[in-house]
Amino acid sequence: MTDLLRRFFSGDRLALARVITVIENDPERRETLLQALHPHTGHASRLGLTGPPGAGKSTLVDRLTSLIRRDGQTVGIVAVDPTSPFTGGALLGDRLRMQSTWADPGVFIRSMADRSQSGGLASATPDVMVALDAFGKDTILVETVGVGQSTFDIANVTETTVVVLTPESGDSIQAMKAGLMEIADLLVVNKADRDGASRFASELRMMLDMRQRTSEWLPPVLKTSARDNTGIDDLYASILCHRAYLTQSRELDARRLRQSRAAITRAIDARIARRIWDQPETRPALDRLAERVCRREVEPYAAADEVLRTVGLGN
Amino acid sequence: MTDLLRRFFSGDRLALARVITVIENDPERRETLLQALHPHTGHASRLGLTGPPGAGKSTLVDRLTSLIRRDGQTVGIVAVDPTSPFTGGALLGDRLRMQSTWADPGVFIRSMADRSQSGGLASATPDVMVALDAFGKDTILVETVGVGQSTFDIANVTETTVVVLTPESGDSIQAMKAGLMEIADLLVVNKADRDGASRFASELRMMLDMRQRTSEWLPPVLKTSARDNTGIDDLYASILCHRAYLTQSRELDARRLRQSRAAITRAIDARIARRIWDQPETRPALDRLAERVCRREVEPYAAADEVLRTVGLGN
Repeated sequence: MTDLLRRFFSGDRLALARVITVIENDPERRETLLQALHPHTGHASRLGLTGPPGAGKSTLVDRLTSLIRRDGQTVGIVAVDPTSPFTGGALLGDRLRMQSTWADPGVFIRSMADRSQSGGLASATPDVMVALDAFGKDTILVETVGVGQSTFDIANVTETTVVVLTPESGDSIQAMKAGLMEIADLLVVNKADRDGASRFASELRMMLDMRQRTSEWLPPVLKTSARDNTGIDDLYASILCHRAYLTQSRELDARRLRQSRAAITRAIDARIARRIWDQPETRPALDRLAERVCRREVEPYAAADEVLRTVGLGN
Repeated sequence: MTDLLRRFFSGDRLALARVITVIENDPERRETLLQALHPHTGHASRLGLTGPPGAGKSTLVDRLTSLIRRDGQTVGIVAVDPTSPFTGGALLGDRLRMQSTWADPGVFIRSMADRSQSGGLASATPDVMVALDAFGKDTILVETVGVGQSTFDIANVTETTVVVLTPESGDSIQAMKAGLMEIADLLVVNKADRDGASRFASELRMMLDMRQRTSEWLPPVLKTSARDNTGIDDLYASILCHRAYLTQSRELDARRLRQSRAAITRAIDARIARRIWDQPETRPALDRLAERVCRREVEPYAAADEVLRTVGLGN
């Protein structure tokens, strides 16, 4: 572990990859690692892109990465999207188009799409961001699918959240229902070359105007076409502008406090989970009680209390 | 509470709606209610439909409901899909087309799309199913978006899971990446009138053949067009056939045991969450520690331990 950390802090990319793998898969060593990494964090800007599948988030991430790199900043990317080309979910063409990013040693990409561990990997996302931050990445980009429930809330791990929609995603009500309008610091209408883009953008602007303002910042609505590379410079400028607003308004402190609160909450959950599920008694007790719940001899809450007593967490 | 339950068990739909609201919003009374309902559960068949947004799941749910009703069975529907017409996410046309289902007193529909409580509602889904089961619904249909992470695994709350895809969703690799192939008891290619439907269906069949078989049941791939109402009878027949397979192979017992195990696990999580977050000391301690985490004076796991000590759950 000490050797791994030594190589990590000397800037060895393989050590970074290894650290992330440990964080994802080894609950025993995860805590120790995170404790060692924490003092070295707080440097990176954290930027999130979210939206429905097929909105073109990955291509935008790729284009933004080029601009950030042009400014001499290093980039870490975490893609939590089973449909992302970063995770192999899209057509070969997409992946080819992104090879510039892949080949750049100043860019580190980690995909978290494998659901075989039933959400386990994706829930490690905030901890993976800790690793990228401690490694010294200047900007961390997170790409998530903003549909349905997420095991973590993107706004809890970023300072700036960009919501990406397309004219096709059509009904702006849908974005609202999914809670996307609430978390947007910037709204992007991507694939803006398509029909209805301008009308859709105006619709979004109207909806934002109707919304109750909770800060000085009114989220801009930007039109981009990631494929044609139009609007990306404006988007990047707006992101930097939001960043400046955060710093100047002291909202940045509030958001970092929220991130810390979320980090403690996750640590609490992890600690408790280990105290329950890492005990050898737990699984047999659960199996026995599940049979009794099936026979309606006991109901799930009473069974839960019995499991908790078994591991010394009873009332 | 006693009066509410009396009305509930006499078949009062308003009492059912009220019970569900309590389950969703009132952690204090939720447990008491669930304990009272549990002995009356175990009657319903639980059927899940999952797939990407826009695959036409809601229309399929509507069509299947008609067939189940024709068989004289009552139906409860839970839609956990922000893009579902049941939850107001789609165009008016969709909603109109479904009015037959809405008007039928033998059908109860509950949507869980409001993300304002940050996933809280959606995570109540399994408990809402308990209420529908105890109310006496013969079949419970759950509709979820099968993209990204879900706060609960649909296969943990159903006996039969139908994965709905469209020729447009294209890349079958994508469905595999999202873990959808793993949980499918039946695969449906919806909007089968469109180009490429047959090729896509063959592709899916091939992928299923390559997969390692874990049971006697080979998931069939069915083509439907929910709009034209074609293929729905075959789908319903296949669902009944899977149900018969489950009963005859005793796999039904295994799946119900898995449901019970998941129910106990959820109860454990709920109990622990209340013991931590319902204490008046917790929030102030968290706020204080979050500041210190921001200043890198303490790292999140140490902070978590301090919170746990505060509420008497320290090591």
